[in-house]
This record gives sequence, structure tokens and C-alpha cells, in this order.
Amino acid sequence: MIAVLKKNTTKEQIDHLTAWLETQGVEVHPSYGVDYTVLGLVGDTSRIDMELLDSLAIVDSVKRVSDPFKQCNRKFHPEDTVVDVDGVKIGGGHFAIIAGPCSVESREQMIAVAQSVKAAGATLLRGGAFKPRTSPYDFQGLKADGIEYLLEAKKETGMPIVTEIMNANHLSMFEDVDVIQVGARNMQNFELLKELGKTQKPILLKRGLANTLKEFLMSAEYIMSEGNGNVILCERGIRTYETYTRNTMDISCIPLLHELSHLPVIADPSHATGKARLVEPMAMAATAAGTDGLMIEVHNDPANALCDGAQSLTPEEFAHLAEKIRKVREIL
Amino acid sequence: MIAVLKKNTTKEQIDHLTAWLETQGVEVHPSYGVDYTVLGLVGDTSRIDMELLDSLAIVDSVKRVSDPFKQCNRKFHPEDTVVDVDGVKIGGGHFAIIAGPCSVESREQMIAVAQSVKAAGATLLRGGAFKPRTSPYDFQGLKADGIEYLLEAKKETGMPIVTEIMNANHLSMFEDVDVIQVGARNMQNFELLKELGKTQKPILLKRGLANTLKEFLMSAEYIMSEGNGNVILCERGIRTYETYTRNTMDISCIPLLHELSHLPVIADPSHATGKARLVEPMAMAATAAGTDGLMIEVHNDPANALCDGAQSLTPEEFAHLAEKIRKVREIL
Amino acid sequence: MIAVLKKNTTKEQIDHLTAWLETQGVEVHPSYGVDYTVLGLVGDTSRIDMELLDSLAIVDSVKRVSDPFKQCNRKFHPEDTVVDVDGVKIGGGHFAIIAGPCSVESREQMIAVAQSVKAAGATLLRGGAFKPRTSPYDFQGLKADGIEYLLEAKKETGMPIVTEIMNANHLSMFEDVDVIQVGARNMQNFELLKELGKTQKPILLKRGLANTLKEFLMSAEYIMSEGNGNVILCERGIRTYETYTRNTMDISCIPLLHELSHLPVIADPSHATGKARLVEPMAMAATAAGTDGLMIEVHNDPANALCDGAQSLTPEEFAHLAEKIRKVREIL
Amino acid sequence: MIAVLKKNTTKEQIDHLTAWLETQGVEVHPSYGVDYTVLGLVGDTSRIDMELLDSLAIVDSVKRVSDPFKQCNRKFHPEDTVVDVDGVKIGGGHFAIIAGPCSVESREQMIAVAQSVKAAGATLLRGGAFKPRTSPYDFQGLKADGIEYLLEAKKETGMPIVTEIMNANHLSMFEDVDVIQVGARNMQNFELLKELGKTQKPILLKRGLANTLKEFLMSAEYIMSEGNGNVILCERGIRTYETYTRNTMDISCIPLLHELSHLPVIADPSHATGKARLVEPMAMAATAAGTDGLMIEVHNDPANALCDGAQSLTPEEFAHLAEKIRKVREIL
Repeated sequence: MIAVLKKNTTKEQIDHLTAWLETQGVEVHPSYGVDYTVLGLVGDTSRIDMELLDSLAIVDSVKRVSDPFKQCNRKFHPEDTVVDVDGVKIGGGHFAIIAGPCSVESREQMIAVAQSVKAAGATLLRGGAFKPRTSPYDFQGLKADGIEYLLEAKKETGMPIVTEIMNANHLSMFEDVDVIQVGARNMQNFELLKELGKTQKPILLKRGLANTLKEFLMSAEYIMSEGNGNVILCERGIRTYETYTRNTMDISCIPLLHELSHLPVIADPSHATGKARLVEPMAMAATAAGTDGLMIEVHNDPANALCDGAQSLTPEEFAHLAEKIRKVREIL
Repeated sequence: MIAVLKKNTTKEQIDHLTAWLETQGVEVHPSYGVDYTVLGLVGDTSRIDMELLDSLAIVDSVKRVSDPFKQCNRKFHPEDTVVDVDGVKIGGGHFAIIAGPCSVESREQMIAVAQSVKAAGATLLRGGAFKPRTSPYDFQGLKADGIEYLLEAKKETGMPIVTEIMNANHLSMFEDVDVIQVGARNMQNFELLKELGKTQKPILLKRGLANTLKEFLMSAEYIMSEGNGNVILCERGIRTYETYTRNTMDISCIPLLHELSHLPVIADPSHATGKARLVEPMAMAATAAGTDGLMIEVHNDPANALCDGAQSLTPEEFAHLAEKIRKVREIL
Repeated sequence: MIAVLKKNTTKEQIDHLTAWLETQGVEVHPSYGVDYTVLGLVGDTSRIDMELLDSLAIVDSVKRVSDPFKQCNRKFHPEDTVVDVDGVKIGGGHFAIIAGPCSVESREQMIAVAQSVKAAGATLLRGGAFKPRTSPYDFQGLKADGIEYLLEAKKETGMPIVTEIMNANHLSMFEDVDVIQVGARNMQNFELLKELGKTQKPILLKRGLANTLKEFLMSAEYIMSEGNGNVILCERGIRTYETYTRNTMDISCIPLLHELSHLPVIADPSHATGKARLVEPMAMAATAAGTDGLMIEVHNDPANALCDGAQSLTPEEFAHLAEKIRKVREIL
Repeated sequence: MIAVLKKNTTKEQIDHLTAWLETQGVEVHPSYGVDYTVLGLVGDTSRIDMELLDSLAIVDSVKRVSDPFKQCNRKFHPEDTVVDVDGVKIGGGHFAIIAGPCSVESREQMIAVAQSVKAAGATLLRGGAFKPRTSPYDFQGLKADGIEYLLEAKKETGMPIVTEIMNANHLSMFEDVDVIQVGARNMQNFELLKELGKTQKPILLKRGLANTLKEFLMSAEYIMSEGNGNVILCERGIRTYETYTRNTMDISCIPLLHELSHLPVIADPSHATGKARLVEPMAMAATAAGTDGLMIEVHNDPANALCDGAQSLTPEEFAHLAEKIRKVREIL
């Protein structure tokens, strides 16, 4: 860590600050410039409160040289992490296609969708049983019943299942769930992350709507620091000023996260764009940029013509996309 | 709610959609333009899933005419809500000054700060016992001990206390806390909001870093829909591209929230700017814009010169500011 | 256009507004709801000042149903526009690879880069002669000399050239330039756009750093409304809160712009990311998402090891990328 | 300037980089840490291309310690600049109220508005003769006639006038204009800034919609580096994800710009919010935060009831606001 001190900082102030920093367990290496003094802090700087330091009257600015994330950091773990989900691998060259409806609606729906997405090449089944909704008046999911229908679909098809948790008190209901998802709105619900870190379940962690990559990795670190290294990162669009799409999908975070971390990185073009007709080009783009997997909404209800055009693909559209994805993967 | 249909939508498609909307309990009033058909939906449209409707292939766009928030909406409750915190009122002309340190550090610190901020005009005491930190390796607060020290400071000074909750399972520890704060990162932790809605405690709800005013009000609605109407809204800066300040304080949300809702609206210039020297001008600005209160970090530790210049004011700076605030309030 | 009026708007106010709207040349079709009145405006609403209407005391909100852009709108021109640049086509299935250095530095550099990028598959040559710099103290480009060196490189290799204009008074210097580029900072320099609209030169229009797709298309419309239909749109990253990349490349705008407009859409991963190691994955992503071309910085100066790793690729890296791009294009 | 080098950078690479930096005229002071080497660059670093340096393969990150802006920097010019506009002073304790309509519509309108805003306490008159519009089909202003009407209003009232320029070729028309305004969209139209720098006219420079304070000050620097020190900075709202207001007014930039620069800083709440009912609270907030002046839209057309509620105030509302502003100013 480097602290740049303001012009006119006195020797006494520098000594005072240095003494305090040393009590925090770091060595201080000053270098005196014409206009500025720079303190190089060496040692375990992860314990230094960077915001506090930055806010001191004599400090112009602070720069962290080493990353604040440790366990998810590629520097300390150069090989790709491969997460094993009941035999299905993600990361390190293993590509996952997670497909299914936004919400679990019924036993029949889940089994039908599961069968059709499996036939088209999906490797994991998704479906929301607990639904985080902006409005308390909107449908909040089938809850325990939803999980039961997912498990039945797994029994029928053999596909491991992925579903979202919103409350650590619900963990007992997730005992047979294969991958537990943490939604964007809970990315910094640190209490939930810590509880999930105490399990050994694979955790699919979605990036918050306005969170930086550093914050994203620090949330992974919350899970890992409790002992659970099975974290899958998922980009699902960030909030910008643009209103044509629901969010702006940040494709560049895929190669960046791979550079910074050894964890698998997948992408969710359905939520990022909110428009079915953008799912194919954005799924292709994410694949070409090196993602380790995709999470795609597929809805299978021929009777409900209303859902044509929603953010969900039909099973036919999904099958077509899965085939194109396979071809792009061959080039990489 | 208004749905604009795409050009070339067939009569059959319109009939199909109309039938479905009617099953959702709304009346449909079509008006046919040269290029577009517009459906006016009348009745309880809060149950219509706007995103689903918007995503249909035949729908160009959807516009909600009535607000999705009900209980916090000024249209249905024109008078200002006044929240009573153990005798201290907030809203409807009652101005609150909430002051205290970012973190509770010790019994002595809390009592000393409490006495000095009370003398300077503060009406409530704040202090963090549970601290949401981006890094799992950073100090997470004194927890139960922190709450105990706050309560002792209350006993000494008579000031009601405000402190943050991060986990609904901790509610029993908050039994004697006067105002429970929900931090920005938990603004859409809906499970926590629902639990707080089941209490009758005043809830200080901070706006999320990248949340719109509608989302902010919908989170207040989560609390109110469970039966707790004692919600205080708090602006604390939003995330933008600007990097000179930690966040960008959205002062215009103060008059806007007052227009949209009857709930009290306060502002936190300390967290919004992250810089002590900006606290005074931004506190003045928020007051001039009509806020119902301020939340200001004050730190009282003459031995720890390090904290000079942090985002906290000294008690002397705070006393000076409180006096200026009083004068601006007289003009309004 | 639809105007939703506020509750409690009187009949007299509605009549007053209707009369004014009719003087603006549109027909007004009111529909009266329980809570709200909605006015449908039919006719040439492009002349109605939407912001003015929206700001009236009795108006709740206004929604434009038809797009404000006309000449670049795919609705009125369903086939792709193919821009012909001295025999090299862009759009409608024709893919362009524009390569070259950020700045023109010397005659020798330009000829050497031109030869190597041509060999690797580039179809157009780029190089900055006039450089928009945030600081007045930074290098502003070789200006007229830079254009001369580009023209010599064209003579040697036959590749058409692309270079940026910053001032309409310089147009005479651009007489032999094949494609005139408008940079992101000048995207809403309407005076410049109008002058370029009076030429018949292909114009490469870069999206502004914080401009919406509608604003982007309206700027294309400025050029086209003066008579020049040879506009190429270029995504080059938008400004967000994320600081790991210089900008956030908005890949989803590629399929969206294709949907909204018939103009060719290309992408510039070098400027969008600012990091050479991200150019390949983002170029691949843009191609997979359906872009009509790429603009890539290539620098060819083995003596200047400093530039290794800059946002520019070496000719070898570029050749490798061009080959991968070709393979992705085959799948689409 | 400080450059942090990546781990594993070789001695040879460091020597190579050091040699190059020395040819750029700076001294290089290395300090070797356990994991990282940091180079301190001392001397005139304004000539170093920070982005180039940052993009080198061996460089982890670069930090500018001294500011890139010089002439507008308060460090080198501690006293406030006072801009004298034909006898009316702005800055250094002199507060300006600039009022008038968004667009000049007619001679009669301008004279009537000028008289009423003068009576209410305005010190300068504004009105748009050249209007930057997103759409080429929208009204572009009365141009030369508009300037003539402004000058007649000045003759009647004695108030200096402020109006926007969009093209340096129009400068001759602005000969008698007292303050030339540069709009947000042209904040980085460097060619225009340079031409205005060659005059001695006061320049009112509006912050771009998505520009940082550093970029804002660098644009002021473009004007000043050509010899014109009469620059007035104007905050007018920045682009964020929030859609309730047209833009988000960044009040905190007022104290920050005062800290960084000696130039006067004013605020435009009319454009920032786009809503008349927000103009008063935001004007009050900006004043309380220390602005040196306000720019407020006032429209004076009792016959045109349509403009009630627009972003313009009526003369009566303006007079009421001016009185409240005066009272807030007394406290500061």
C-alpha cells in the first residue's frame, strides 16, 4: 500500500502517522519528493483500513498495491478452480449450460422444461423457487414446493439443479439443491454469504447491479474465508444510464475476472438484457469472450402464447443457440 | 397502466392479450391509432407483472400510470408522517440531528461523544455495533457489546439511539434500540425488511448505492406492507462515474421524495462524501433543500490525532455546524 | 405520442392543451380513465417538443410511441445500408477490419504498419492526425503532415484510410481521406455534424461516452438530414462506475442498433478497454454479437519496446486475432 | 507521478523504462519493495502520457500526484478569481443571479423578461439564440436575431447578457455579448475552447453530462492556456441511472471545485432538474453549499398558460426565490 502525503506535511505529523501504522503491523518506507512524501507500506496491509487512512488530513491519497482479495486471487492460486456439481464440472475448460424457467410454476412445467433443455444440451437445470421482487405485492415464488418440483425434475432427468436462496434460515430446505444461487441484490448481504461459506455447496454468486469487480471478488472472499471454495461468479448486467436494455451486460468482466481470479465465470444474458431477442447474440458474445458457462431462461409452455417474446427462449430457440455456442467453443 | 402495441399486431393477438389481462382482474380499454394500438388498463394494476407484459413480442412498451407504491404514497396519505422516537419527533416540521461515531469503540468513547453531541444540539445518538464491510478481513464491529455501550450512553444523556441491523436473527438484541437502521447494501434484502415490518420500531432505511427512488420507496413499502409505518428514508449518496467523492449525494431526491411520499426524509452527508471537509456544505445544502433531519459522524478522541480530517467531524466542528443549520432552518 | 394527464386536471385545462397541440399540427385523441386522462397525439409528432410538454403542470408524463429518428430508422428502410469506401464495402454482410496506430508518428511508421496490417487481413487503415486530448499540454497530433503520411501509406498499399476530424474548417485537408471519423467527444457537436452532412464522404461516427442509443442515432440523423447517408456507427465503450477498464464496452448495442437502424455498426475494442490484453476477447465478443467490422489499434515499432502491452496490438497479435475473427464469422 | 511496476519486472526492464522516462524530462526515483517496485517521477510530469505509461506490460498502475491542471489550480493561485462582466462581478464573494428564458423568442419577450428579472434582483440576463438540440428537426434558435434582441434588452435594462456559442465561426456575431456560454455537449469541443481562449470575453463553461471534475478543469485549462483567464464554471447536472430527474445535480462539486480551483463556480438548477418545482429547493441547496451564482430560467408570458409548470419559473416565483437566496447568503 502506498500513501501519498500532502504538501507541507510536517516531520512530526509523518512520525506520528508512521508510529500508528507500525502498531498496525506494517513496515513504513518513506520516500521524500520535492513536493510530496510517499510512504510505502510493506507487510500484511489487508488489515489497514484504507478509507480511514485516505480520510486523514495529511493524506492526499492512498493506493492499494496488493489486492485485498486473497483466497480467490489467481496470484496465489494460478490454476483454474473446477467446481464439481454432482459430477458436472464448471471451469478449467469445462463449460456449463444452465437452463430453465425464471420461476418454478408447477411440477409438470419443470419436468417438461427439464426434458427439453436436457435434450438440447443443457447440463444443469435452473428455476426460481424464492423470487426477490422489487414490489412486496408481486409473486414471491412457490418456495418449498418449488424446490420439491425441481428435485422431481432432477430425478426424471438426472440434471443437477440451481436455485436462489434469500434467507440463511431457509438453508435446511436447500439440503438437496446442487448449486445455491445468491442473487444480485444480495451480493453484499454479508450475513448470508458467511452462512453459505460454512457449507460445502457450490455457490453461484451473481454480481450486484452496481458493484465493481473488486467488490464482487470481496463477496466471493466472504464465502471462501469461511471455508467454502466452491464459488462460481456470474455476470448479469450492470446499471448504467442506458434505458434500451434492462441493464448493460459487461462482457469485458469475463476476461478480467479470469485474470484476477481462478474461480469459474459464467454469464446470464437473459437477465442482463431482459429481451429474448438479445439472448442469442449476447450468449454468443460471452462465449467468444471466454466464459465458463451460460445461464439461460427457457420456458416451455406452448399453451401460453403470451410468453412468446419474453426474456425466455422457447426450447427450440434454445436448442438452436446451444448448437451455435458449441461451434464457437470449438474455435477457442 | 398503458400498453403500447407494436405496428402490425393482429386483431387476434390483441384479443388474446386482452383476454389474459382480464383474467388478471383489470379492465382493458383499447384505442386504435393509425400506426399503433394503445391498451389502457384500469383497475388494480399493481398485480400485473409489468416486466412480463413489456417483454411480449407484440408489446412495444408499457407505462405505469399509477405508482406501484401504495402505503408510502402521498397521494393516498397527504399529511406528513411524523415518526415518534421515544418522544423525539421526525418529519412534519420536526427536524432531527442524529450524531455519533461511525463505529462504537468503547463505553467511554460512546458516553463522551454522546455528551458532547447532545450539548451541541443533537437529538439522537448513532453508533455502529454491527458493521457491514466490503472485506471479510476488516473490523466487523463490537456487536452485542456495542449495543450495550450505546444503551449506557442513552442512560447517561437521555438521547434515543440509532444503530444498524444486518441479520433478522439479531432482532432480540435490538429490543431496546430506538431506531433500527437498514444500511444501503441491505436496502433490497427483502427478507430482512419483512421481518422489520413485523415490529413497530422506527426503521431508518438508507437508499441503496444504485437504487432509483421508485425502488427505494418499494423497499419502504415492504416494511409498511407488514404493518410497520414508522419508516424514515435516508439519502446517503449514489454511485456515479465521478471519483473525487466516494459517492454523489443526490440532494434533489429530498424534495422529490417529499412529493412522492409522506415519510420523513433525512440525509447523511458523512457517508455520501467520505470527506469531513464536505460535510458542512452538504449538510447545509440538504437542509436548504428541505430535509427533515441529518445524520452526521462525530468522533471525540483528542488522543487519536489520526482521526482529524476523517469523514467524522470533531465535536467543535459539529457544534459550529449545528448552529448554522439552525439558522438555515429559520429561513425555510 | 401519448400524454398522460394528472389526476384532477379540469376539462378546461384539457381543452386549452388540446387547442395548443392542434396548432402544432397533430390530432388529439383523448381517452378518459377513472383516475387519469390519456391524450393520444397522431400525426407528425416529431415537431412536438416532448420536454416542454412533459414539464407542463397538468402533464404527468409523456411517451413517444414513434421514434424521433427517421432517415436512419430501419422501419422506413428495412434493407441494410452498405457503405462503399473506395471499393471496400461495410455493412449488409460485408465485414471491415480497420487497423493502424492510434497516432500517426512518421511516414516510415505508417507505411510499415500499413503493410503489416494489410498482410494480416485489414481492409482499411486508421491513424490519428488530429488528436483530441483531455489536456491542452498533451501531444495534439501531426495534423496536415499526418494526413499526408496516411495518403502515402494508401498509395503504397491500396488501403483506404480513416482519420478523425475535430473542426469543420479543416475539411479541405480531408479531401482525399476516404472515411472521416467523428470522435466520441464530438458526437453532439451538431455544427460539425451538419457540415459533414453536406459532403458525400463516409462518416465513421463514434458513440459519445455517456450517450444513449437514441442520442447516438439522432446524431447520425443530423448527418443524414443534410443529405449524406454514408454513416457508419461505432461503439467504443461507455462511462460507468467500474474503474478496472477505461470504459465499459456495451456489446448489446450491436444487435440493438441493427434492430433500430439500417446503418452498419462496428466496434472499437482498443479504446473501449484501454488494455491490449482485452482487445482479443472483446473483438471476438463483438464479432459473435454481429458487428459489421472492427477498429483495432496496431503498432509496429520493434525498437520501441515501451509500447509492448499498450492498448495497441503488435502486427503478430493482430494477425492471430484476424484469423480467429474469420473463423467466428464463418459460424454466423 | 508514481508508477507501480508489476511483480517479476526485471532489472533490465526497469532500466529501459527509466531511460525512456528520463528522455521525457523527468527524474526517476525508484523504491524497491518486497513484492513491487515503485518509481517516483519528479519534475514536469504534465508532459508524460499517463495512459500510455499505464498501458505498458510491466506497469501495474500509475498515479498522478500533482494535478494536471495548472492555470486554474488553486495551489498556484490561492486567491479567488473575480470575473468582471461589464461592471458586474462574479466570484470572491460576489454573487451573480443570471436569469432569463431558455430561448429568445421575440424582441418583446426579451425586454419584458429582462425588466421583470431585473426588478426581482437578477444581475445578468440570459437567453438562447443558438440552441443545441438532440434532434435536427427541433427548433435551433433565432440565431443572429436572437442576439440582437438580447442586446436591445440590455440597452433597456443595463443588464449584461449571457448566451451560448456553438461554432467558433460565429464569434463575430458575439462581439457585443458580455458572457459567452459553452454548453455541456461542447465541453470537450477543444477546437472551440481554444478559439474562445484567444478572446478576452468571460466564458461560462458548463460541465459535460458525464465529465469528471478533472476533465471539467482541463477544459477550463484549454481556454486559459490560450490566454483568457475569465472562466466561470457551471454545474448543470450529471447523467446517472436515476430517471425521475432529467439529470442528477452534483451539489458536492461546488465546494470541491472551490477547493481545487480559484475560478468562480455557479449552478444551473433549471437544466439540472428539468422541473420548475425543483428549481427553488435546488437553488437554495446550491447557495447553502457556497456557489458564486445561479443561472435560472424565467419565462414571462402570461398569455401562454402552457408554460406554467415548465422548467421555467414565472417572474413572481423568481422574485420569491431571489429573496430567499438573499437570506441564505446572509448566513454564510
